Amino acid sequence: EIVAAIEAVLVRDRPLAGRRALVTSGPTREALDPVRFISNHSSGKQGHAIAAALAALGADVTLVSGPVAVPDPQGVKVMKIESADQMLAACLDAGALDIAVCAAAVADWKAARPAAGKIKKKAGAPPPALELAPNPDILATLSKAGPKRPALVVGFAAETENVVANAIEKRGRKGCDWIVANDVSPATGTFGGERNTVHLITAAGTEDWPPLGKGDVAMRLAGRIAGHLAEAVRKQAAE
Amino acid sequence: EIVAAIEAVLVRDRPLAGRRALVTSGPTREALDPVRFISNHSSGKQGHAIAAALAALGADVTLVSGPVAVPDPQGVKVMKIESADQMLAACLDAGALDIAVCAAAVADWKAARPAAGKIKKKAGAPPPALELAPNPDILATLSKAGPKRPALVVGFAAETENVVANAIEKRGRKGCDWIVANDVSPATGTFGGERNTVHLITAAGTEDWPPLGKGDVAMRLAGRIAGHLAEAVRKQAAE
Repeated sequence: EIVAAIEAVLVRDRPLAGRRALVTSGPTREALDPVRFISNHSSGKQGHAIAAALAALGADVTLVSGPVAVPDPQGVKVMKIESADQMLAACLDAGALDIAVCAAAVADWKAARPAAGKIKKKAGAPPPALELAPNPDILATLSKAGPKRPALVVGFAAETENVVANAIEKRGRKGCDWIVANDVSPATGTFGGERNTVHLITAAGTEDWPPLGKGDVAMRLAGRIAGHLAEAVRKQAAE
Repeated sequence: EIVAAIEAVLVRDRPLAGRRALVTSGPTREALDPVRFISNHSSGKQGHAIAAALAALGADVTLVSGPVAVPDPQGVKVMKIESADQMLAACLDAGALDIAVCAAAVADWKAARPAAGKIKKKAGAPPPALELAPNPDILATLSKAGPKRPALVVGFAAETENVVANAIEKRGRKGCDWIVANDVSPATGTFGGERNTVHLITAAGTEDWPPLGKGDVAMRLAGRIAGHLAEAVRKQAAE
């Protein structure tokens, strides 16, 4: 009940009013040819819930989403894309931002040379060689220092092994402020499921959150974001 | 109205009562690791509509479906699978069949060695080599001559170029009785869309059907299947 009470106060007070937030969500699809693609099991449920939670706290939210079955959150500007290249372009188009939450499961690689026509299976011939190329790094791009960097950049780490260690390493490598790390091993049911067990990794250390519904993870994260930005304002005023 | 009248008579007379039909639908997903996969843009709309149409004409229908967003058709036994290997196993489990309609967009290839843990992107390292291996050929397997072969095996050909020529060649190579060929170039909007323009390729030649809703393609195909099986019974009786 304490959580629900805090949530009610946050939604009433809209602490993120006047703040601009970008959220990425869902998988990307990387075309191999006009019919085939590489993708992943991200459902978009967590990212969409975060977009909805930030909007509930008053933020002006743009959601850049890959192909998902979940409905668009209300009160959020939704931009639908397929590939990582398209997601990056949409993110860079979003303009000045206070907050960026990169919850999408962006494909690390795409086909080096997608075929213009459907790749034909030839009887007796070996399978085609599939050469991959790296996708742009959206989280690292948004995290890059500069006058246009959002005040707070939050990444996600979807891991199946050494979840926290990999996520701490990822935070340093990407240059983002926080990482939300979750275990997406099939046994956890995180991808596509309704619940999530996450670790919040910040400069201060690692917090292990209890298993929560994805909506509760989103609201808790949005509350933390609001608190962090309010604290930054207070510090600036004190200087 | 003539079409609607014929359809009403077919649904009333249930010409496929007592017949067992298998329909495959949707894409397959071929795991690269626990989170990534290769798939394709098949929505399952055409295959699911065919399962529903065969059931409407009285058939006992098993639908083996990959991951799709369309709802399960009513009055049909639905078996949900992910990979081509799982789809083949489900098809072989379906028991004795009169009719098999392979409408699924089965991946031609899978990862030769799917990774047990998520493949990690290494900074500075080249993308991983992705070695592919052929998937089982479900249509050719069901088409193989023998006492258990369904009386009628119908395949689908999803092509982006030389649609009819490729489909005629496919019919010979797979050993199926009919091929429903459609153009799935992105410009046609067939994958994921509500309409379809198909060619029916049989031993007698090629019929070009007009653009139709996927439900109408399904009902027309189901009617043709019922007619073909009734004709076969008549011929046997005359011998």
